[in-house]
Amino acid sequence: MAKMTRKTDLDELTLLGQKVRPVKKLETFPNHHPGRDYTVTMKTDEFTCVCPKTGQPDFAKLTIQYIPGRNIVESKSLKMYLWSYRSQGVFHEHGINAILDDLVSALSPRWCKVTGEFAARGGIAIVVEAEYRQEREEERDKGEKGKRGRR
Amino acid sequence: MAKMTRKTDLDELTLLGQKVRPVKKLETFPNHHPGRDYTVTMKTDEFTCVCPKTGQPDFAKLTIQYIPGRNIVESKSLKMYLWSYRSQGVFHEHGINAILDDLVSALSPRWCKVTGEFAARGGIAIVVEAEYRQEREEERDKGEKGKRGRR
Amino acid sequence: MAKMTRKTDLDELTLLGQKVRPVKKLETFPNHHPGRDYTVTMKTDEFTCVCPKTGQPDFAKLTIQYIPGRNIVESKSLKMYLWSYRSQGVFHEHGINAILDDLVSALSPRWCKVTGEFAARGGIAIVVEAEYRQEREEERDKGEKGKRGRR
Amino acid sequence: MAKMTRKTDLDELTLLGQKVRPVKKLETFPNHHPGRDYTVTMKTDEFTCVCPKTGQPDFAKLTIQYIPGRNIVESKSLKMYLWSYRSQGVFHEHGINAILDDLVSALSPRWCKVTGEFAARGGIAIVVEAEYRQEREEERDKGEKGKRGRR
Amino acid sequence: MAKMTRKTDLDELTLLGQKVRPVKKLETFPNHHPGRDYTVTMKTDEFTCVCPKTGQPDFAKLTIQYIPGRNIVESKSLKMYLWSYRSQGVFHEHGINAILDDLVSALSPRWCKVTGEFAARGGIAIVVEAEYRQEREEERDKGEKGKRGRR
Amino acid sequence: MAKMTRKTDLDELTLLGQKVRPVKKLETFPNHHPGRDYTVTMKTDEFTCVCPKTGQPDFAKLTIQYIPGRNIVESKSLKMYLWSYRSQGVFHEHGINAILDDLVSALSPRWCKVTGEFAARGGIAIVVEAEYRQEREEERDKGEKGKRGRR
Amino acid sequence: MAKMTRKTDLDELTLLGQKVRPVKKLETFPNHHPGRDYTVTMKTDEFTCVCPKTGQPDFAKLTIQYIPGRNIVESKSLKMYLWSYRSQGVFHEHGINAILDDLVSALSPRWCKVTGEFAARGGIAIVVEAEYRQEREEERDKGEKGKRGRR
Amino acid sequence: MAKMTRKTDLDELTLLGQKVRPVKKLETFPNHHPGRDYTVTMKTDEFTCVCPKTGQPDFAKLTIQYIPGRNIVESKSLKMYLWSYRSQGVFHEHGINAILDDLVSALSPRWCKVTGEFAARGGIAIVVEAEYRQEREEERDKGEKGKRGRR
Amino acid sequence: MAKMTRKTDLDELTLLGQKVRPVKKLETFPNHHPGRDYTVTMKTDEFTCVCPKTGQPDFAKLTIQYIPGRNIVESKSLKMYLWSYRSQGVFHEHGINAILDDLVSALSPRWCKVTGEFAARGGIAIVVEAEYRQEREEERDKGEKGKRGRR
Amino acid sequence: MAKMTRKTDLDELTLLGQKVRPVKKLETFPNHHPGRDYTVTMKTDEFTCVCPKTGQPDFAKLTIQYIPGRNIVESKSLKMYLWSYRSQGVFHEHGINAILDDLVSALSPRWCKVTGEFAARGGIAIVVEAEYRQEREEERDKGEKGKRGRR
Repeated sequence: MAKMTRKTDLDELTLLGQKVRPVKKLETFPNHHPGRDYTVTMKTDEFTCVCPKTGQPDFAKLTIQYIPGRNIVESKSLKMYLWSYRSQGVFHEHGINAILDDLVSALSPRWCKVTGEFAARGGIAIVVEAEYRQEREEERDKGEKGKRGRR
Repeated sequence: MAKMTRKTDLDELTLLGQKVRPVKKLETFPNHHPGRDYTVTMKTDEFTCVCPKTGQPDFAKLTIQYIPGRNIVESKSLKMYLWSYRSQGVFHEHGINAILDDLVSALSPRWCKVTGEFAARGGIAIVVEAEYRQEREEERDKGEKGKRGRR
Repeated sequence: MAKMTRKTDLDELTLLGQKVRPVKKLETFPNHHPGRDYTVTMKTDEFTCVCPKTGQPDFAKLTIQYIPGRNIVESKSLKMYLWSYRSQGVFHEHGINAILDDLVSALSPRWCKVTGEFAARGGIAIVVEAEYRQEREEERDKGEKGKRGRR
Repeated sequence: MAKMTRKTDLDELTLLGQKVRPVKKLETFPNHHPGRDYTVTMKTDEFTCVCPKTGQPDFAKLTIQYIPGRNIVESKSLKMYLWSYRSQGVFHEHGINAILDDLVSALSPRWCKVTGEFAARGGIAIVVEAEYRQEREEERDKGEKGKRGRR
Repeated sequence: MAKMTRKTDLDELTLLGQKVRPVKKLETFPNHHPGRDYTVTMKTDEFTCVCPKTGQPDFAKLTIQYIPGRNIVESKSLKMYLWSYRSQGVFHEHGINAILDDLVSALSPRWCKVTGEFAARGGIAIVVEAEYRQEREEERDKGEKGKRGRR
Repeated sequence: MAKMTRKTDLDELTLLGQKVRPVKKLETFPNHHPGRDYTVTMKTDEFTCVCPKTGQPDFAKLTIQYIPGRNIVESKSLKMYLWSYRSQGVFHEHGINAILDDLVSALSPRWCKVTGEFAARGGIAIVVEAEYRQEREEERDKGEKGKRGRR
Repeated sequence: MAKMTRKTDLDELTLLGQKVRPVKKLETFPNHHPGRDYTVTMKTDEFTCVCPKTGQPDFAKLTIQYIPGRNIVESKSLKMYLWSYRSQGVFHEHGINAILDDLVSALSPRWCKVTGEFAARGGIAIVVEAEYRQEREEERDKGEKGKRGRR
Repeated sequence: MAKMTRKTDLDELTLLGQKVRPVKKLETFPNHHPGRDYTVTMKTDEFTCVCPKTGQPDFAKLTIQYIPGRNIVESKSLKMYLWSYRSQGVFHEHGINAILDDLVSALSPRWCKVTGEFAARGGIAIVVEAEYRQEREEERDKGEKGKRGRR
Repeated sequence: MAKMTRKTDLDELTLLGQKVRPVKKLETFPNHHPGRDYTVTMKTDEFTCVCPKTGQPDFAKLTIQYIPGRNIVESKSLKMYLWSYRSQGVFHEHGINAILDDLVSALSPRWCKVTGEFAARGGIAIVVEAEYRQEREEERDKGEKGKRGRR
Repeated sequence: MAKMTRKTDLDELTLLGQKVRPVKKLETFPNHHPGRDYTVTMKTDEFTCVCPKTGQPDFAKLTIQYIPGRNIVESKSLKMYLWSYRSQGVFHEHGINAILDDLVSALSPRWCKVTGEFAARGGIAIVVEAEYRQEREEERDKGEKGKRGRR
């Protein structure tokens, strides 16, 4: 029989089934299939932050995709993490990259991609898509240092 | 004339045309075109399991795709297999991989992919996509053992 | 000026403009652009056959795609060919492969693909996609014989 | 500042802003960015011709795509060209290839693709997609001659 | 913690939060993740220019996509830039390429693509897609000169 | 507590959970809320009959709606009833009215409506909607006789 | 058992199952349920006529709805009737009313409505909806004469 | 200023913010606008029960609508109420009426409507819509008794 | 035979088939069915005006519906009329009512309705729907004067 | 010519074209067509408030519709009003009625309706629709007092 969720998988989950509050802590549970490259996609229509210049609210649909390494993010803790942006002043392009950075350091995924579809302002809607790939990012960091040195 | 379904193809089907009940047995009938890589896709909107921590019901749309080897899964037995998850406590990511594992051991397909689109909880919807490929999985298993040893 | 349909193209068409009846004969007319790999896609929502075990009707949407060789299938004769499945007992997977086999032998296309999207039974819908490619099929047939021998 | 449309670009346009009539003449204006491979897509739901055997009207949605060489087709002259098919008896597969041939000889594009989605007859809808690529077509023509010779 | 928008990022933004007017100036703010190839997509349904021959208004949906280099375009200044086309006489194909040229010279992006879906005239709708890629464009420019020389 | 399905409700159901075959018998079970005018809608995409003149198959989507009187139609027996049209030659308008007549005599509903959306033939799709209302039909029958008498 | 299509219903149908040609003759077959007000809806995407001033083709989607009196229009003869507009110069508003007039005189329906959704010209799409009701039309005709007299 | 939610409105809510379990208790909070007839609509895609004869799972989309009287149902308690049907054997028509009965006795609404769109079985999907209206139901109950007496 | 478009119908059309320019003149042709209340609907996605305070462009989808009296508006003259708003500063609510007023005085229709769906600003989209009905407007004008007097 | 927006219409608008902040002040400009009952619809996908018990964010799509009396609400001030709910703890049903109350007292509209479509929680989505009608509300208030007295 296939491997199911075990009692011990729940050991480090403190938030699931509890009241939620906005925090930047991302809780995880173990990945039972680390030998298989499979993808997890998490979508929400309920992301909001504020403009860093005018203070006005911005709204977005977020899509988070990743290939798990050793851990899987528990979705309630993700909800609380995203909640923490509610009063944060940030440009769309900066915010999506920041979320990607936080997920990468919390999950060490093999691959991760964050997409934010922001509601139109002045008739212009903005979508930001940022992607991380374990090996590529490392290579690029090296190359980028070289390039920057050259500039 | 092309090869049609034969009388003897039905020999091992005990469930089709009978009442159904939740069991993990996956019945099959012979593949008449083993020399051709063709795909079979099975979709259902009626998958439900429960949360391993809170016991609350979860709901998902499932898509199962595979390239048959010698056998083809009979769809009524698949229905009964999926039914068996109705009271099972399992995280989304674990469940989809478990279904993939069971299909692979029952069908020895050349390729198989299971996708579960789970209904949103707390405004966040999760989609899990796990894929199996005969050769790749074997190679990866080897490589994975090596990697794990290195860790 | 570009090449249009000529009078002689109609020479072998006995069914177009006539009453139709269910037969397995696939009539064709000449391909005027044999030097170009272009695709023809034929879709119908009106395919029906019966279950080989219970005798109940099954319904499917069919999509037939091919790259013509010397000939193009006339669509009215295709209609009559598909009609001939109305009383045929056949599993979804067998039927789609049989239609592909018949088209390949009638048209000798460079490539051909048949997709059947069958209506759900027990909440499970099945899609079967079978593909033929002139060279690949030949190579695979050889390889398959070898593999089977090895088994 | 970027290159805009110039007065002289209009020099050879005799139809734009005038009454239209069905003719096979395709007028063009100069491409200002011949060094860039960009695509132009032209769509219409208003193509009609007649069946070469029964004389009944046929209807299609046409999509024309190309990468311009030195010239760009003016859309009003394209409208008049397509109008000229209104009384033409032609099979779907022949017609789409003929339109592609005429566009290629008028525009010498780097790439061109014509897609015709014809309305269903007898429950069967036909889509024809024909593609031209400068180099490939030439190579294929040679190869085709060879193949034909071999047949 | 991930890098967020900083006070100094706003230093060169003179238009955001102010009244807008049609100008061709494209303001930018710094890219905090120059080492990562991520895409920004900006969409608007509100582009209008006029026909260079008849003076009649044309309408289009614009999609602008790019991989940022050192800078990110501020969306309000983009709005004012697009506004400047409101009275400009320009063919669809010329206009889209001109917008791409202006974005490339203002942003020095790694990649940029502009798509204009123009409203139908005479039943024919036109979509123009022009793409820029840092390296490729340079290579092509060289090659193009060679080709032109050869012509 | 609200009234649920009772054991005795199943007493007259001979087909549910059994193999099905095409018959014109419509089985029913008791309506527990005869004092409330509520509607039941039954939809299927799987209706097929044949043309009474040419014998060609016709396909339709059926929608059956009614306000139950004392009985509710069991859906499996409805399936078998509809199956019985598979070889029946009937015009669209006649067939839909015939189905309405049979439902009315089997169920004595307070109101009943049958809608058939038939697949297009020659580019023309036909929808037939026939409605029955207990009192109105009786009144109309009287009035109709009067009118006919007058003709 | 409900009333089905009878042999004699076919007596006056000369076109069904035959080749079609554009004529203004509308053939009918008997209505078996004259005592019931039910609606028949006929839809086609394939209507085309020409502009009475410029001669350019116009295209429309037509919807014809009616409550049959003694007769039902046979759909193939409707196809030929609509075909007869292919070369007719007529404004949208005139054409739809003319079709309604012809149907009313051919069918004497209790109610009839014709809707034409014409493809956009100059960015403006026109929909014309004309409705006939036996009693109302008569009353209105009287009233209209009165009103005109008063003007 | 308009009336907002008050602290005391929460006094009787024992379930909101707590873990959930399947119970038939429907908790409420006070309606602040009893003088206004406004509607509340609650939708879920996650209703499941079982067939009373075969025991197989059924799935439905539920829509609950009502005009509040003095109380408003708290949505988490509704979730737990619907959960209680997970193992209940009930026909579609009976179940929807039972849910309506329970809501009416818990909320004393001015109007209430429950719609269940059940997943297809044997190609037939069933939708049940039951409606309650304070006055009408009372009148009908009287009338119904009279009618029954008459039967 | 039904009444078609006549030569004399074109007598007063000076714009159709000619070049267009923005003017407020609405040309008409005769209504052949003044005794029938039928509706004409004209839709365009290409309406643009400017904000009366900020001067920024606004965009809207317009729908114009009317029951013709003696005349029908010719669509090309409508296009030129709408074009005249391109530089006009006007609030959404004022503009739609102004268009309705102009149509009513030009066409003396029995009924007329203008709907403007304006593109979102600040995340808020505005739709304005204004309706005219010959008799009602007159009565209301009287009543309104009475009401105003009373205020 | 029709009445357009006048300079003096802008006299009392202090927010349009300025920076926005969350306030409950609703600014208006004069209605030029008080004698006509026309509707204004304002839609936003960007409403957010918090749960009064758990403090978690809620999200909704709002639709505001009204028939203006003497004044029209300026959309930027509406935006700021809705923004003021961002930190407000309120149940869905209370919030929508509160918004309706505030609009009614600010605009004295002839009719007003507010619809809030809240994002799903626990798989259940809630839509609240509250409607105000000048006369009806007054009558109901009287009747309600009577009813309450009777209770």
